[in-house]
Amino acid sequence: MVDAVTPAEQPRRRGRPTTPLLSQEKITQAAVELINLRGYAALTMSALARRLEVAPSALYNHVKSKRQLLLWIQDHVNMEIDCSDFGVRPWDVALESWARSYRDAYARHSPLVPVIAVTPIAGSPHTVAMYERVAAGLRAGGWPDDQVMDVVVAVESFVLGSALDVTAPDDIFDVPSDQAPVLAEVVGARVGRDAARAAFDLGLATVLAGLRDRLKALGG
Amino acid sequence: MVDAVTPAEQPRRRGRPTTPLLSQEKITQAAVELINLRGYAALTMSALARRLEVAPSALYNHVKSKRQLLLWIQDHVNMEIDCSDFGVRPWDVALESWARSYRDAYARHSPLVPVIAVTPIAGSPHTVAMYERVAAGLRAGGWPDDQVMDVVVAVESFVLGSALDVTAPDDIFDVPSDQAPVLAEVVGARVGRDAARAAFDLGLATVLAGLRDRLKALGG
Repeated sequence: MVDAVTPAEQPRRRGRPTTPLLSQEKITQAAVELINLRGYAALTMSALARRLEVAPSALYNHVKSKRQLLLWIQDHVNMEIDCSDFGVRPWDVALESWARSYRDAYARHSPLVPVIAVTPIAGSPHTVAMYERVAAGLRAGGWPDDQVMDVVVAVESFVLGSALDVTAPDDIFDVPSDQAPVLAEVVGARVGRDAARAAFDLGLATVLAGLRDRLKALGG
Repeated sequence: MVDAVTPAEQPRRRGRPTTPLLSQEKITQAAVELINLRGYAALTMSALARRLEVAPSALYNHVKSKRQLLLWIQDHVNMEIDCSDFGVRPWDVALESWARSYRDAYARHSPLVPVIAVTPIAGSPHTVAMYERVAAGLRAGGWPDDQVMDVVVAVESFVLGSALDVTAPDDIFDVPSDQAPVLAEVVGARVGRDAARAAFDLGLATVLAGLRDRLKALGG
């Protein structure tokens, strides 16, 4: 059922509209831009209203609290994550493509990593749907119910840590060789590579191999 | 050699000292407390001076910039990490105890996770010494030079993501079962456990098993 309002029933607006039209999408997009530019601590309802060029009261007409806004942001970013292999391809193949797109999404939104890591998913419908699909895919792959969330959280922890690492400066481990000769040599040995990508690839392959062995040992 | 100053050589202070004595340790401790209470964004030189009950100029006499302060903070927290098994016990045993104490240290200082993930280590001498010991231990364990830092960064990514997860609320995955029936069941199946601990234990065991297999395949 839709609460339809025919044009004839709409009150005629007098003069120009005083505020631009707001929507969940427009508000969320502006909030994500603000966070990417100035960090999560800079996201206040008043700063967001200024960015949207509306009065705070107009913003509060659409989103009742910063809490509500955060649930929208969570859903907005998580929609960039591809979980479509779950239920279609083997669990480990699906887990790999999910982890890769998850890491890429949060590498684009790294100031959100520490926030999303502690935000309940209830109230973010696309996020809930994503986890439902991941959980069903792991269960169908043979993971026992009481280990499914451990697998999910372990992979997520690696993914979110890796998303932070993408933003690390290239010189993060540069040290004078007289201070730390072995470190200087092994850091030098990786020159020319995308360091964050290489570490993520090694880590993800390692996690997947370890999980396959673990499931095999469980008789799965 | 010590630049000793005998009491007789010290100029007599006139009247009461106008500022309490500052030291690297005292300043760093106050900065860490401020971050744990109010987040990293709240750490400004002027807020820190207020907390220490000194004038900003007195603070700047000891630490020349927020950048310098951050290097002190990094070293201060990383001194809580135990890397003493490297060079003494097998590389995988050492990697496990290092990862556990690393995760526990940053679980106590979770607002620092996104900051430390992107802070160069040069200028933090204890931190440099820690990485030197870890790198030498992995090399001695048979890891080829060009993979040592990939192993370190992959494990660190998992550790830092897991440290953030320690601060997640217990209800983070709670959803109505009519919205996400499988998710609700697998989340219910872990009730009564320390969820963050269980996910970390599973993930760490998985990473270590995967790394042992990888090194074996390299002929190490």
